[in-house]
Amino acid sequence: MTRAITNLGVDGGRLWADIMALAKITDPAAPFTRRSFSRLFLDGRDWLTKRFREAELETRIDAAGNLIGRIKGSDPRAGSIIVGSHTDTVPSGGRFDGIAGVAAGLEIVRMLRERKIALRHALEIVDFLAEEPSEFGLSCIGSRGMSGKLTAAQLQFSKSDGEKLSEALARVGGEPARLAEAKRSDIRAGFELHIEQGTVLEAGAIDIGVVTAIVGITRIEVVFEGTAGHAGATPMHGRRDALVAAARLVDRVRILAEESAAQGRGYFVATTGVIEARPNASNIIPGSARLIIDARSESREALVEFRERLDRESLVLARAASVERPRFATLSDTLPSACDESLRQLLKAAADGLGLSFVDIASGAGHDTAFLSHIAPAAMVFIPCKDGASHCPEEWCEPKEVAAGTTVILEAVLEFDLRET
Amino acid sequence: MTRAITNLGVDGGRLWADIMALAKITDPAAPFTRRSFSRLFLDGRDWLTKRFREAELETRIDAAGNLIGRIKGSDPRAGSIIVGSHTDTVPSGGRFDGIAGVAAGLEIVRMLRERKIALRHALEIVDFLAEEPSEFGLSCIGSRGMSGKLTAAQLQFSKSDGEKLSEALARVGGEPARLAEAKRSDIRAGFELHIEQGTVLEAGAIDIGVVTAIVGITRIEVVFEGTAGHAGATPMHGRRDALVAAARLVDRVRILAEESAAQGRGYFVATTGVIEARPNASNIIPGSARLIIDARSESREALVEFRERLDRESLVLARAASVERPRFATLSDTLPSACDESLRQLLKAAADGLGLSFVDIASGAGHDTAFLSHIAPAAMVFIPCKDGASHCPEEWCEPKEVAAGTTVILEAVLEFDLRET
Repeated sequence: MTRAITNLGVDGGRLWADIMALAKITDPAAPFTRRSFSRLFLDGRDWLTKRFREAELETRIDAAGNLIGRIKGSDPRAGSIIVGSHTDTVPSGGRFDGIAGVAAGLEIVRMLRERKIALRHALEIVDFLAEEPSEFGLSCIGSRGMSGKLTAAQLQFSKSDGEKLSEALARVGGEPARLAEAKRSDIRAGFELHIEQGTVLEAGAIDIGVVTAIVGITRIEVVFEGTAGHAGATPMHGRRDALVAAARLVDRVRILAEESAAQGRGYFVATTGVIEARPNASNIIPGSARLIIDARSESREALVEFRERLDRESLVLARAASVERPRFATLSDTLPSACDESLRQLLKAAADGLGLSFVDIASGAGHDTAFLSHIAPAAMVFIPCKDGASHCPEEWCEPKEVAAGTTVILEAVLEFDLRET
Repeated sequence: MTRAITNLGVDGGRLWADIMALAKITDPAAPFTRRSFSRLFLDGRDWLTKRFREAELETRIDAAGNLIGRIKGSDPRAGSIIVGSHTDTVPSGGRFDGIAGVAAGLEIVRMLRERKIALRHALEIVDFLAEEPSEFGLSCIGSRGMSGKLTAAQLQFSKSDGEKLSEALARVGGEPARLAEAKRSDIRAGFELHIEQGTVLEAGAIDIGVVTAIVGITRIEVVFEGTAGHAGATPMHGRRDALVAAARLVDRVRILAEESAAQGRGYFVATTGVIEARPNASNIIPGSARLIIDARSESREALVEFRERLDRESLVLARAASVERPRFATLSDTLPSACDESLRQLLKAAADGLGLSFVDIASGAGHDTAFLSHIAPAAMVFIPCKDGASHCPEEWCEPKEVAAGTTVILEAVLEFDLRET
């Protein structure tokens, strides 16, 4: 295997300056906020469009509202390589989630331009539309569109002021009526750089995470119903305390998740994030209790097993506490998206050649790459982030960490372009 | 032991009519509501005062705001017997909680009058002021006053419109400046009839509960603090999930309470009624969790042990979940009040003589008798209530059940009057 390590590096200062410049385009009252479809979001895209044009990228917005900058390849039959992420944020979010991945693509293009390196493949930098949960109750809108997964029903979703997603999409330059044209079949490789949003890399002092898969997410709601009663006048043996069953299920979720994580079938986490007891008064036995459980894994089988086990065990716990379990509902259920193994090998070889430490890592959060992987080989690079903080103003990574991740993708792009025929 | 069973019985229809008449004095929008200190409460007392006077009772309001109707005894040195409870309700409460005990006293007096039975002791029927938690954040105001436990600080408590308890007390006929005069030293026996507010009697088809003690109540707040984190990006082994520790403590509360209840040191119950996780979002690991635990027992020792064990175990659970336990606080702590053994024997003998089934039972709820027991021998009779429902419009007991409980107290009063010298 020949390797194309060029030791080009990237201009880390220029890359960092882009990220910081985009961070200034924020709601000043709630940094860092640049919500999809908002005026600030469009200001950010105007700024980005200027940078794309300075880098001599052919710039357009596709029918799904993705902002795309393109360099033609030398071989028209070779298809496209894309590098991208997103520039929208959650409210009071961070400066790096999404943005770093778009800035990385831009810096790669500039570096290739400066070194006059022409690729056989076309290279596109993509700012995917609305990766974060939008006001329309939908996330990954642009990458859904690019992969043919944005449905007509979803286009009818509306936000609180009544605007429909189809209208908002047109407002930001997309073409809802021609949405099918956004679906791509020419992409040969997709790369996304992203902060980890966890502490695995930081804790291990590891430079690069090579993502194995983006987890599938199963979200389950469980309700227990007993009998509210006087906390003083109801003896222990006559109780139908819904919270006792719910609390025991919280413990089981934790233990089953630890077992599943230890089984070697890949990344597995599960969390009881929501608990509500009613009436939630100190002198009344809880008559009902509700949980929302979030399980994530790169193994579909592990998620299915977890759900089945929770179903069985929650019934046993209900019976033991003399309560009912009127609801055990799957609120949402997405499939894990494996990253492309061949691209992952290129990323690892690149990191290795650059003297960077790296590790296989699953993505516990959703990303545009999950949708992209439905239509093309795709892979992700994680870089460390301070204390795992994300979706908050404290979100942070170091300039050299962004530069390292960007260089790994640059090397992988060059190698891919050289090898793929 | 000679017994004075007279088989007088009581006029159950007349007794029932009183309860139903008082039930009509309610906020029509939220039956059955007659909040202490309200216009409706005073209307109820006006109605009751008329009934007291019809029964030739010498009627007054004491300095602590208790409405008292009195028949002199034949022996001025014999002291007083009191029978009473309260006529205020919780919002949207029931027709029997408190009211039945006052009506029982009135019916006993009428029966004695009609049969021309003169007691050696004075007999007083008491409508204790504000037994239910009042708008001043205080319950059992009248019985606190009668037992010398209503403090100057409590008189300064104010309700939302700014009125102080001392002002409200004066408004309903009490004399806050002469509160010390409300404290009694002449009471030789106190009796209270009350609905059980639980299902022990109903489930066992038992007519009469002879209360052993009114529980002490220890209320504990526990807070666990961990680290909120991304539910997807935080591996199981790195988690500091506050809810996991809290849920395990809910389970321990239940198990320790069951053990304590089975130990034969008397009635014991414990309940986790309040649970709150933060931020309580499905995709975020709970960074903090708060519980309020309510433990009640007739054994002070059992309550102290329970609290100590919870203190130790909650620290162990915190450590096991890698979280902190910044708060373990006793919010309130009252002593159990034992009912007088000699009066209890009189009640049991009366029930037995009347062919009624009876059982020892602890009161898991607070009552005026708990305060009265500080200054006099006191005892309580519980009667069954449907489905244990209380503090709600569905609160219900049968006419014959109230009549049976009232007759038991009547017999006990006669026997006490005969025997005590």
